[in-house]
Amino acid sequence: MPNKKVVIIGGGFGGMNVAKSLANTSYEVTIIDKANHHLFQPLLYQVATAALSPGDIATPIRSVFTKQKNVKVVLGEVVEVSKTDQVVQLAEGDVIPFDYLVIATGAEYNYFGNDDWEKSAPGLKSLDDALRIRERILVSLEQAEKIHDLEDRKPYLTFVVIGGGPTGVEMAGSIAEIAKRNMMRDYRNFHRNETNVYLVEAASGVLNGFSESLSDNALETLTKMGVHVLLNSPVEEIRKDGVQLKNQFIETPNIIWAAGVSGTDLTNNLGEETDRIGRIKVNEDLSIPNHPNIFVIGDAAYFEDEKGKPLAGVAPVAMQQGKYLGKLLKNESNGTNRKPFKYVDKGTMATIGRAKAVADIKGFKLTGFFAWLIWGVIHIFFLIGFRNRFRVFAEWIWHYITFKRGVRLIAHKENREVET
Amino acid sequence: MPNKKVVIIGGGFGGMNVAKSLANTSYEVTIIDKANHHLFQPLLYQVATAALSPGDIATPIRSVFTKQKNVKVVLGEVVEVSKTDQVVQLAEGDVIPFDYLVIATGAEYNYFGNDDWEKSAPGLKSLDDALRIRERILVSLEQAEKIHDLEDRKPYLTFVVIGGGPTGVEMAGSIAEIAKRNMMRDYRNFHRNETNVYLVEAASGVLNGFSESLSDNALETLTKMGVHVLLNSPVEEIRKDGVQLKNQFIETPNIIWAAGVSGTDLTNNLGEETDRIGRIKVNEDLSIPNHPNIFVIGDAAYFEDEKGKPLAGVAPVAMQQGKYLGKLLKNESNGTNRKPFKYVDKGTMATIGRAKAVADIKGFKLTGFFAWLIWGVIHIFFLIGFRNRFRVFAEWIWHYITFKRGVRLIAHKENREVET
Repeated sequence: MPNKKVVIIGGGFGGMNVAKSLANTSYEVTIIDKANHHLFQPLLYQVATAALSPGDIATPIRSVFTKQKNVKVVLGEVVEVSKTDQVVQLAEGDVIPFDYLVIATGAEYNYFGNDDWEKSAPGLKSLDDALRIRERILVSLEQAEKIHDLEDRKPYLTFVVIGGGPTGVEMAGSIAEIAKRNMMRDYRNFHRNETNVYLVEAASGVLNGFSESLSDNALETLTKMGVHVLLNSPVEEIRKDGVQLKNQFIETPNIIWAAGVSGTDLTNNLGEETDRIGRIKVNEDLSIPNHPNIFVIGDAAYFEDEKGKPLAGVAPVAMQQGKYLGKLLKNESNGTNRKPFKYVDKGTMATIGRAKAVADIKGFKLTGFFAWLIWGVIHIFFLIGFRNRFRVFAEWIWHYITFKRGVRLIAHKENREVET
Repeated sequence: MPNKKVVIIGGGFGGMNVAKSLANTSYEVTIIDKANHHLFQPLLYQVATAALSPGDIATPIRSVFTKQKNVKVVLGEVVEVSKTDQVVQLAEGDVIPFDYLVIATGAEYNYFGNDDWEKSAPGLKSLDDALRIRERILVSLEQAEKIHDLEDRKPYLTFVVIGGGPTGVEMAGSIAEIAKRNMMRDYRNFHRNETNVYLVEAASGVLNGFSESLSDNALETLTKMGVHVLLNSPVEEIRKDGVQLKNQFIETPNIIWAAGVSGTDLTNNLGEETDRIGRIKVNEDLSIPNHPNIFVIGDAAYFEDEKGKPLAGVAPVAMQQGKYLGKLLKNESNGTNRKPFKYVDKGTMATIGRAKAVADIKGFKLTGFFAWLIWGVIHIFFLIGFRNRFRVFAEWIWHYITFKRGVRLIAHKENREVET
């Protein structure tokens, strides 16, 4: 009989781990992704803040599977999944059949129904997003340098990050470092004290989901770094020229969205039950009801642990689910029964800035330099491809010594014209 | 009396060297550039062929002058120069006065009056150009991977470089390496032998201006690498789907322009005498007739050496002219008379591929590995900024050992949609 076909939609942490675990099996694996690269998203904010180059945190999906001959990589966008015919349809028209389907499409930013906000407040999901944000920040500083009136240039020296989760905290922290640190010495017309960085959060604290002591510590650290953290401040409106909060308007072209997420068009149109942020509710074995051969993993899936607590949309969950699914499919071919998925929480951490982080590892709470060191080591370790690890490590040493941001490049003319 | 104002248009090799030579003088220096970075153009083709990242060959102009406080950097485009009022006008409206003006705006690609060719056959002058070409090549390979009919996918595996100068030779050489080497192992549906790389040159040889033996050697090396070199083949038409030559049509979306150059709008509208490719004819001291305080250097200038031979548009000429001008302006402040500019030819070289290059250093002709080594050392040496040198060196070692192209990223969605 012919080899079974496993189709994986999405080359993120989940999808990549499924494919890798199926090495040396008879399965014919196809990974479909809109981008040609696997992205190490936990470090995406460092591209957005000119600390790393795109090439440092992204690896061509193909190159990961050069030697694994049972994996085929397709650059394309899946527009429809036919659960009964067992095929997926690409935007370009191609139709790809599957025996098993893994939906690992991640999540998208959700503007609470105000999609027009996206133009003024880009989210941070792709390399493209990161480069746009980087250019927006750099162009804004160039603008400020040209304006001689203190009041007139204030908006260009103001930065607002919306959402106090790990990404928001990391963005605000590193923008504060850029805005308050050496890089500012390169500008002649304004002083770094003129810069303002805001972190806007609707809830009563940052890093919700972390232990209270850690989220308090993060808040304190951010404040020490000069970030204005505005809690209990839901956003009422986002315009091209600023953010409207309940009782103040912050004028700036530099708005970054790190708040709510939702499902993708693909998962939304799948006709399965989702939670309020569009994650598909999956069975114990990560399959969807009535379709034991269709699985959803990572940020796209809603899964409750033993305590009934839904798993967070973080890399470790996606990785473990990917590996679990690889194992499950191997056993499947030997007719072994499926065991339910169990998530092993190895801890949570967030970095706030240079030599500043918070970590909660199996109950051990760490802060400051040591937490940051662990954060760095773990992230280097999980980076795919020796080359990237080596480069990122070198870059970090370099930043640590010099405080310099290496890749402050405005590469795209048309983009810049949009902004200036 | 107030300090004299030196305004430099262009942050390339010429402009940067003028500004650097004016360190510790009383001159108030302003560098105006459309981009925020100095670009190491001799390595731009390596970004276009996914060997290096933009951050490896570009440095923010500001960061170069962090410590040199008499230099101000302005991100902007000069639309008009008023020679009599001694001011330059920016597109954004700002008006900047000068006592001395240095025009170092380089050259642009010239499509011999067929500007519509540019869309189908981008040149290689900016980071943006390089990233577009890189994406075009990568997207084309992804397309080929999806097409199962050998004939139908042929165009996507065909690459045409137009122009047999150093840039054209370097582009063709490294595309051939990509197309014939390991990277192709990542694709499942086609074999690397299916790829075709053409180098199209109107003249009877490549690398004109180099000694005959070297240009012959380059031709031989390219052919050995599998490049189809078409000599005496002027381009008749460029279309989105291919290149029309006198007696053949090459069907491909992958066309790269490395042929003629011309002046920029700025130099064309300056009302000065130019040569046929738009370079402004300058006096012995690089000033323009009747305006001893306005200078033109680098690719934008037409200057004949003692033998009446015009200097080529290469980095060393621009660097030496920049340093010369810095010295001239220093002397000027002491009332010393101007000495004429003299170019010291340290040799010409071009790289063709991994461990393959040709060099002509003061009459010593070198080829192959040794020439390549010298090429590498010299280019590393002239890279601005330790960080970049370190990264580029590391990257080259990495490529040399692994044959791998690191940065094969398709970052820009909209761009990709254009192409696919």
